[in-house]
Amino acid sequence: MILGHETSAVVEAVGCEVKHLKVGDRVATEPAVPCERCSYCRSGVYNLCPDIACHATPPYHGTLVKYFLHRAAYAFKVPDSVDNEEAAMIEPLSVAVHSCKRSGVTVGSRVLITGAGPIGIYTLMAARAYGATRVVLTDINEERLKLARELGADQTILVTKELSEEELVAKVKEAFGDGEQPDISLECSGAPSCSRLVLLATKSGGVAIQVGLGPPNVSLPIADAAIREVTILGAFRYKDCFPTAVAMAASGKLNLKALASHRFDFKDCLEAYKVAKSGAGMKVIIKVTE
Amino acid sequence: MILGHETSAVVEAVGCEVKHLKVGDRVATEPAVPCERCSYCRSGVYNLCPDIACHATPPYHGTLVKYFLHRAAYAFKVPDSVDNEEAAMIEPLSVAVHSCKRSGVTVGSRVLITGAGPIGIYTLMAARAYGATRVVLTDINEERLKLARELGADQTILVTKELSEEELVAKVKEAFGDGEQPDISLECSGAPSCSRLVLLATKSGGVAIQVGLGPPNVSLPIADAAIREVTILGAFRYKDCFPTAVAMAASGKLNLKALASHRFDFKDCLEAYKVAKSGAGMKVIIKVTE
Amino acid sequence: MILGHETSAVVEAVGCEVKHLKVGDRVATEPAVPCERCSYCRSGVYNLCPDIACHATPPYHGTLVKYFLHRAAYAFKVPDSVDNEEAAMIEPLSVAVHSCKRSGVTVGSRVLITGAGPIGIYTLMAARAYGATRVVLTDINEERLKLARELGADQTILVTKELSEEELVAKVKEAFGDGEQPDISLECSGAPSCSRLVLLATKSGGVAIQVGLGPPNVSLPIADAAIREVTILGAFRYKDCFPTAVAMAASGKLNLKALASHRFDFKDCLEAYKVAKSGAGMKVIIKVTE
Amino acid sequence: MILGHETSAVVEAVGCEVKHLKVGDRVATEPAVPCERCSYCRSGVYNLCPDIACHATPPYHGTLVKYFLHRAAYAFKVPDSVDNEEAAMIEPLSVAVHSCKRSGVTVGSRVLITGAGPIGIYTLMAARAYGATRVVLTDINEERLKLARELGADQTILVTKELSEEELVAKVKEAFGDGEQPDISLECSGAPSCSRLVLLATKSGGVAIQVGLGPPNVSLPIADAAIREVTILGAFRYKDCFPTAVAMAASGKLNLKALASHRFDFKDCLEAYKVAKSGAGMKVIIKVTE
Repeated sequence: MILGHETSAVVEAVGCEVKHLKVGDRVATEPAVPCERCSYCRSGVYNLCPDIACHATPPYHGTLVKYFLHRAAYAFKVPDSVDNEEAAMIEPLSVAVHSCKRSGVTVGSRVLITGAGPIGIYTLMAARAYGATRVVLTDINEERLKLARELGADQTILVTKELSEEELVAKVKEAFGDGEQPDISLECSGAPSCSRLVLLATKSGGVAIQVGLGPPNVSLPIADAAIREVTILGAFRYKDCFPTAVAMAASGKLNLKALASHRFDFKDCLEAYKVAKSGAGMKVIIKVTE
Repeated sequence: MILGHETSAVVEAVGCEVKHLKVGDRVATEPAVPCERCSYCRSGVYNLCPDIACHATPPYHGTLVKYFLHRAAYAFKVPDSVDNEEAAMIEPLSVAVHSCKRSGVTVGSRVLITGAGPIGIYTLMAARAYGATRVVLTDINEERLKLARELGADQTILVTKELSEEELVAKVKEAFGDGEQPDISLECSGAPSCSRLVLLATKSGGVAIQVGLGPPNVSLPIADAAIREVTILGAFRYKDCFPTAVAMAASGKLNLKALASHRFDFKDCLEAYKVAKSGAGMKVIIKVTE
Repeated sequence: MILGHETSAVVEAVGCEVKHLKVGDRVATEPAVPCERCSYCRSGVYNLCPDIACHATPPYHGTLVKYFLHRAAYAFKVPDSVDNEEAAMIEPLSVAVHSCKRSGVTVGSRVLITGAGPIGIYTLMAARAYGATRVVLTDINEERLKLARELGADQTILVTKELSEEELVAKVKEAFGDGEQPDISLECSGAPSCSRLVLLATKSGGVAIQVGLGPPNVSLPIADAAIREVTILGAFRYKDCFPTAVAMAASGKLNLKALASHRFDFKDCLEAYKVAKSGAGMKVIIKVTE
Repeated sequence: MILGHETSAVVEAVGCEVKHLKVGDRVATEPAVPCERCSYCRSGVYNLCPDIACHATPPYHGTLVKYFLHRAAYAFKVPDSVDNEEAAMIEPLSVAVHSCKRSGVTVGSRVLITGAGPIGIYTLMAARAYGATRVVLTDINEERLKLARELGADQTILVTKELSEEELVAKVKEAFGDGEQPDISLECSGAPSCSRLVLLATKSGGVAIQVGLGPPNVSLPIADAAIREVTILGAFRYKDCFPTAVAMAASGKLNLKALASHRFDFKDCLEAYKVAKSGAGMKVIIKVTE
């Protein structure tokens, strides 16, 4: 099984009907290609297509190879201002774009993000691009929160074991000031306590979206959320988000490079995966050259 | 504390600026009157107004009295074709209307309703009015399911202790046929197992709405729902639903009377509450006369 | 050039991957098959696909033949309760479904339909199915209005040359009573005067949708509509509407037969088109037999 | 009749129930105060309230006075980073915010703005804040277009009498490159030719919104817009936009000052109105001091 699904590549050949790409173009590849025919595809939610074929998701191989075949409509040319490393981050940035779009982040939104790992940080960047007025991140790791502040978080909350749930909710309210609560909360950690926190902390009528993936079953304060009409969403991959993510990257306003903590040549692949697995750093770049 | 919030009444006097009501009009009264000024009220979600004043919700008295004062804009005239008993059911019918509107029931929707108590039955009626193509109800009480079938359910599922969760989900899929699942599931029982079922049984990209109120914390299969982008909503009372519910009742297509299982005079009030508390029957009508 | 795009047919053969159809199934065929790959198709608005191939739209032939090839995903099985004539009306009914969906007709909607020809009548039926509380039709032909009333219109307005625009708007307001105006107006005649009327008569914040097709340029009261935030929509064919239309037909609540004014055998085709062109009657059925 | 509706002011006194303002606060005042009780107000579209009372709209006086009474909920505190002149521009900026919100400008949107007067320029700023990727303005005045480019327009099109409608549409397509067309077009000039242009130039399935106000009747290519499902909207004032506009101004990313072309003391009021009427410059500031 070949791994790899966050990918930038150079076009080596194109089919005769492909008009938007030519040999030599640098592209970001959307790894999951849908059937384009089922009721999900036809109604515009192709990310839910049951027959979608995704890089590095069995039985489909990934992209850590010299050459791979890809349906052209799911390869997006990046401009010169976006380099290959940034282009490889279009995929995780698209995850963030999808969750911001689905949850409705817009100008004036007050946003809570739980988890300051890579997805939390990309979500911070996307939320800013969508116009969020105030963005607060939580994490159990102060170093990650420091990076979040450097990359634009208005405020961060360090979660410790000493804090009770009530205290944490109170801290979130305090962080938004004036008795306000977040309009939209994006759970990016996968921790059950955070899945709970986003339900409790989001304002009545607001939106809490589960982006991170935790255990199958979580004890949730569903009655409180239901009474306060907090909409609970999930986000699965992305649909129609790569063009937006490319435009964001091309705007030059995002510091995508800040996420690239390690770089490896293809021959040191195993080492790269060890680093990624260890949780040290954020994004590990592997360069496949001819 | 005076009880009563599902009410029909006759107008005895109106303020000088009231144009839509006159003395003698029969009305259904929306029991929760919002402040009309806060950000919730101004943005059209007045049911979330923190200063809303609701009949029979402390410190506000209810309507089991000969005369009560009510803001005219929240009193809705019913036509001759809707009698006083039916008019008193506009309130619970509005709960059903709100949850159908919020969850998007429309022509062609395949709908699952868990719980065949009064709210489940009103929701069945409302889902039909909104054009649902197929409506399936579940309950632990076969008698209630029989009533559901008489009132228009396409199919019912009797939930027993012998059925595992997987078996129950399979039964729901079977009830919708052709490997289909409900587009929209409305939880109307308050049972934690049903809060779980609606998440598991709803199709990917569908909507599950919590109308019934259960315990504060429920163990939910949130990862499965999130990955499949099932939108989880709650419903709190109603907003702008009374006119729709009155129109529904006036259409003559709903058999609201079927829900009125018991009738009492005001002097037998205590007996009425005992019956209601016992769970025998569906709706208990109390008539307050001069 | 072979004509024909409102079609029911019997499946004679299916491809090996087709699961939802088998030989002998009776189907309604959606005549416009999109490319399934462009940005419109991918975002769920396949009716706007620039490469869509539609029956009887050059260079594509229509269905007035014994056998035609059709992409299976765009052929919808009809149940026994829907006969071949009704199945042939799924196409125009889908036009009505699309305009009702796009304009948001729902339970409680007060609806104005201008034009009581076939599309106006199908729209009346669809608006009723979507729960419209009050439906008013206008036409210049009293006979058509009579049919509209028989098929469920609450009220009709005969448009004559003597009526000024102001008088006509006043008549519409009167027809909705209590100083109300339609929430949604559907223009189904193609007459410029009706394109104007729907803008002027629709309530502030309402929706006016152009379903009928008139001349390229029409003088419209756009300032009035803009100030009153009347949303002006157009409707082009349909997308994802055939299943809904089939469900509607299968419900047995629609009197589709009432639209079938003439019937011809295939050998009398020319005569059928003469009748259709003359404007006599509503729908002309042509039966192609082996 | 006292004029003035684009206003910043200092709070001199507050009612006993007002919590969000105190004496000395600097505020931007939303000039149109709705009844808060009608069906429009209750459903969140208070800008359509028929009983709305607006500064400088008969019979209501405006704000060119030393003291005026204003309902507190419609006065919005501005932070120290927003000075009085900028605060007075929150009103026209809110018009731009409303039209961007209504038309759905978001990250990645390609936007056409016709008219580079004050509303067109504020709309440019708002569209940028909402994340528009490409913004193109048209005008008949090259000086205004120069200002538009300085304030962030990606490209401008000078409209001359020599250009035919077809040529102008072609120029718009060219300006968006790659055969693309704007997703959203905002008409900010009031010129009938521009009301036509936004319908013709917007992509299929896109949105054209009439913000500028022209003559009552305009000949529009409605059939083309309807077939291509271009949604045509109008914008009337704003609702819930002042907080967003204040947040935008406070972000420091907008160069609101660039619009202030003239400044007058209250005693030179008449002169100020002469300048404003002449069309010289953009925004004329009048300072009322004690």
